[in-house]
Amino acid sequence: MNAVVFDEGSIRLVEVPIPEPLPGEVLIRTLLTGICRTDRELFEGYYGFRGVPGHEFVGRVERAPGRKEIEGSRVVADINIGCGECSWCRADVPKHCLSRRAVGIQGWDGAFAQYLKVPEANVHLVEAGIRDEEAVFAEPLAAALDVSQQVHIRSSDRVLVMGDGKLGLLIALCLRTLTPHLVLLGRHSEKLETARKQGIEVFNVSTPQDDPSAPSPPGSFDVVVEATGSDLGIQEALAFLRPRGTLVLKTTSRVPSSVNSARIVVDEIKIAGSRCGDLRLALSYLKRRLLDVTPLIDGIYPSAEFETAFRHAFGPGGKKILLRWS
Amino acid sequence: MNAVVFDEGSIRLVEVPIPEPLPGEVLIRTLLTGICRTDRELFEGYYGFRGVPGHEFVGRVERAPGRKEIEGSRVVADINIGCGECSWCRADVPKHCLSRRAVGIQGWDGAFAQYLKVPEANVHLVEAGIRDEEAVFAEPLAAALDVSQQVHIRSSDRVLVMGDGKLGLLIALCLRTLTPHLVLLGRHSEKLETARKQGIEVFNVSTPQDDPSAPSPPGSFDVVVEATGSDLGIQEALAFLRPRGTLVLKTTSRVPSSVNSARIVVDEIKIAGSRCGDLRLALSYLKRRLLDVTPLIDGIYPSAEFETAFRHAFGPGGKKILLRWS
Repeated sequence: MNAVVFDEGSIRLVEVPIPEPLPGEVLIRTLLTGICRTDRELFEGYYGFRGVPGHEFVGRVERAPGRKEIEGSRVVADINIGCGECSWCRADVPKHCLSRRAVGIQGWDGAFAQYLKVPEANVHLVEAGIRDEEAVFAEPLAAALDVSQQVHIRSSDRVLVMGDGKLGLLIALCLRTLTPHLVLLGRHSEKLETARKQGIEVFNVSTPQDDPSAPSPPGSFDVVVEATGSDLGIQEALAFLRPRGTLVLKTTSRVPSSVNSARIVVDEIKIAGSRCGDLRLALSYLKRRLLDVTPLIDGIYPSAEFETAFRHAFGPGGKKILLRWS
Repeated sequence: MNAVVFDEGSIRLVEVPIPEPLPGEVLIRTLLTGICRTDRELFEGYYGFRGVPGHEFVGRVERAPGRKEIEGSRVVADINIGCGECSWCRADVPKHCLSRRAVGIQGWDGAFAQYLKVPEANVHLVEAGIRDEEAVFAEPLAAALDVSQQVHIRSSDRVLVMGDGKLGLLIALCLRTLTPHLVLLGRHSEKLETARKQGIEVFNVSTPQDDPSAPSPPGSFDVVVEATGSDLGIQEALAFLRPRGTLVLKTTSRVPSSVNSARIVVDEIKIAGSRCGDLRLALSYLKRRLLDVTPLIDGIYPSAEFETAFRHAFGPGGKKILLRWS
């Protein structure tokens, strides 16, 4: 089969054997794979990953020895694979297993390939009403929805989402279903427009200060979600919070952030980190059409054009780029 | 009356008029005043404070025009004085009023004086079973107890308190009443011994690594309370937390802290800032003798010896120093 392999700083499309599912695993034929900021970080050396990346995907079950009834079904899959033995795995939270692997990120080949295998338990069926181009967002959408799993967002809460990257846009679209008092702050007018069209109040920090659409002054939001991707994000986010407000961190900056801890103490700020989420919740959002993810797609490339696709995805200002495998 | 005045970098005992209580205020004759780390920071220029500092005190009501029945009673008092009008004040949380003043800290003369006045509503009566030397701890004890008001400490939680300063010791003594799985980490054997004598497991980071009393390895505590007073504390605290653990910040470092935000995101850490607390809860702890604060006292000086007292308090390794006014 064809697979995109990251190895020693190069990305190549190579011919490799189709993976052989072990007992308890299923083989999936890839339909679409999304390119994520994490893929860029993998390529830049994060985690020292070698192998086939790709953790945002939708596919069709090719072979499921232990679960014949799902063969032929469209599926998405949880990417975290725990040891199955530790207290986190026994509590069904493999994302915190200390020996975890992650599909396409750490110790497990991913979905930039015609086929991949995953544990049977990680698979979730995609209902007929959800298109491939939507289902491929299940993983990043779950990560966006995790904000509301880590902290309680009430309909009266004034929420600021910082960052108009792919994750920031998804977070804003998700949280907009929980509170009408939501502002998305970014610096790319085209991306902000995508959110505005779905009823989200946006603020462009690149526009002049005297713009009448300026957001509320610092110190006024109940919840701020930091998804800027910048190590400077935390400090900026604190300035937008009211006393006793909550900051949700989504950025996994590789550079340490400088934080005014006195502000956190004096104003009794709460901070919560948020990572991967629940794919079933994401699928339910897609099924119920609570948001439209397709305007976030900037391009769908055939897998043979993976180089152009990655260049597009890793370039400035890009939204979601997908690779089609079959 | 005599009062210690901080002004332009000097501390002097001077003769000033006894304050005149306005309607709604009470005049208190000071019995004991505690010297706090915040007093040192005031002296170093924090908040640009001028006037009479002192926010840890016990006194006797000298005059209460609107509440005659408490005249002669021993009292302590909340230090935050709000505007009385804003939403925080209406919610009875003056500590977050944006126009707040604070007794002996910001815009209101404090208790390093023979008399001070405070709003009637700030006063709490001290029951007969509580000695002056205990009641004077009400304010810092309330701040220590606030940890358990900001986050829910369960009896099964493994808790690490970092810092064996006065606040760290009080926090450890308070939280020990909520969970038996508590470790106090510090670097001063004498201070740690004070805690150990009240049944607290202690760990001295200054002792050699091969010490058999070494604490659990990093990554294992459910809750870590950072009370080191150092800007490096947050980063060290994160290393002791399990995934999904909670970090409570008490240090108001004036230098920004460097924080690995990726650790907070990937391990879904929660952080909570904690400041002042509920004096009624502190008095109830003292009344029920849930902890003994008196071993934390290093010395009681007559007010005339305030210079020696401050030198002692601000020196290295000191515990609590009190000034006696009458």
